[in-house]
Amino acid sequence: MPKMPVPFGDDVSACEIGGDKLVVLKTDMLVDKTDVPRGMNLWQAARKAVVMNVSDFAAKGVKPIAMLVSLGIPRSLRQSDIEELGDGLNAGAREYGAYVIGGDTGEASDLVINLSVFGMTTKDKLMLRSGAKPRDILAVTGPFGKPPAGLKILVDNFKASTEIEKTLVQSVLMPHARLKEGLALSQTAAVSAAIDSSDGLAWSLHEIARASKVGVLISSLPIAKDAARFAKNNKLDPSALALYGGEEYELILAVKPRLWGKAEKAVKIAGGKLLKIGETTAEKNVLMETSGKHVLIAPKGYEHFKTLTSF
Amino acid sequence: MPKMPVPFGDDVSACEIGGDKLVVLKTDMLVDKTDVPRGMNLWQAARKAVVMNVSDFAAKGVKPIAMLVSLGIPRSLRQSDIEELGDGLNAGAREYGAYVIGGDTGEASDLVINLSVFGMTTKDKLMLRSGAKPRDILAVTGPFGKPPAGLKILVDNFKASTEIEKTLVQSVLMPHARLKEGLALSQTAAVSAAIDSSDGLAWSLHEIARASKVGVLISSLPIAKDAARFAKNNKLDPSALALYGGEEYELILAVKPRLWGKAEKAVKIAGGKLLKIGETTAEKNVLMETSGKHVLIAPKGYEHFKTLTSF
Repeated sequence: MPKMPVPFGDDVSACEIGGDKLVVLKTDMLVDKTDVPRGMNLWQAARKAVVMNVSDFAAKGVKPIAMLVSLGIPRSLRQSDIEELGDGLNAGAREYGAYVIGGDTGEASDLVINLSVFGMTTKDKLMLRSGAKPRDILAVTGPFGKPPAGLKILVDNFKASTEIEKTLVQSVLMPHARLKEGLALSQTAAVSAAIDSSDGLAWSLHEIARASKVGVLISSLPIAKDAARFAKNNKLDPSALALYGGEEYELILAVKPRLWGKAEKAVKIAGGKLLKIGETTAEKNVLMETSGKHVLIAPKGYEHFKTLTSF
Repeated sequence: MPKMPVPFGDDVSACEIGGDKLVVLKTDMLVDKTDVPRGMNLWQAARKAVVMNVSDFAAKGVKPIAMLVSLGIPRSLRQSDIEELGDGLNAGAREYGAYVIGGDTGEASDLVINLSVFGMTTKDKLMLRSGAKPRDILAVTGPFGKPPAGLKILVDNFKASTEIEKTLVQSVLMPHARLKEGLALSQTAAVSAAIDSSDGLAWSLHEIARASKVGVLISSLPIAKDAARFAKNNKLDPSALALYGGEEYELILAVKPRLWGKAEKAVKIAGGKLLKIGETTAEKNVLMETSGKHVLIAPKGYEHFKTLTSF
């Protein structure tokens, strides 16, 4: 086995190719019945497959260069459906400056969209899950809760006012990967650990804690305004929505305190923002401060929905 | 779009990464219901997914370095089944000196094994489908017919004597990619065009003709002895079996006549052999010489079987 610059279980894999250069690779399989919610069309599903992969590259601070696509196509799909998938894949790739350079198609019972993404970086630029030290600052690239609320509307028939519903549903149908932020941060050497939040904030915090052998104390949980309102109107706990929902594509970062200013500035120049949410701790618990008390954040991940899709 | 060192539709994709270096990428999706014949166990199916991909690398003369695996797993599979898949993937990778470095799993209705393979080469070493000139020598790395005969036994209930049946079935269950041969040939600069034969010899000859803008004249069709005997006993046309069967993993090569000796020697040193089967022609037909007459080889590809598998 060659030396692994990225440990098993991180978001991407990598190979050394001489000097400090790394080839970064990632594969991710989207299956309609678990990854495509009701109300998402084929163009959006294909684009989402791209965003899922780009988000992992963003978390590692690596620019995706090229993608290969394998499509498993059910017999029920028409030629126009397949073209819609192709358009969504290309649109997603172009949004993030990457190209679809090849692929494979075959027949399958489910619609399966498998993407393989290739990028390059150097060892010193790669952000892993495993480098955080106690008392690093924990930060995120945006507030949480909108996609989980949107999923509750799409999948579980929850209700919201027309305007809020539109915003929340749109956050599920048209997710965005924080690539600009990840690439900017990878240039600063300020980030000690990074992960995206596609499996939910709670799960990602536990992952950083596990991989870096630290604890986590969340002092401020940023919840999107529309998500908070949705939670209130539906008698849901807004913190639970933000912590245990999934399909979020914010980055979660541990930042070296002395380089916080540099990190914040780099993300601002890239057009984004960094929100402090807490810090890493020597004691290995994953905690949140609520009304002056420390409560455990459960190691719960986002469970993919089992509902059948609309096509 | 960046410049494409390998045109769309060739066996692999590639990206320039500076100098004359290329990153070579390939993705291929195996779906049990069309790619896994009755009688093939999960270990063999997983290993076969590796061989399919390695064979394409072999045809391009590129060493596979690392693989990513996405598994779509039906609920009916047990933990031990999944371990069997993992063992088959690792066994296949190790046979060809590559490593599985990451992947993804999810739930799917079919068993889906998607492999993404990464390798590196330089522009001058890469063998494409498109470089053949008229009067190049056409050669293959072994005789044809055994896997198509084996498939007829496994899928269509054809019969053969116990010993021949074992050989023919084994050629389907345990295919081998001609990687040593492909790598040796890529060092000679003797090969003007190359392709593997997983979709059948006839289809591959048409592909070389199309991509290289030449014709093909086959003067000698090497048919495996056991396949010829199987054909005779079952009143099948042995040439049709060799031409239009699939799941073959021999390489088909156009070789510059003045470098034939060099190519032959390189393959011999690698432990293989090169069999002359004909030549490329200026006239753009794909023909075979039979009893002194030139007959057209139909542009027929191997059709994946639709029979349900045993698991």
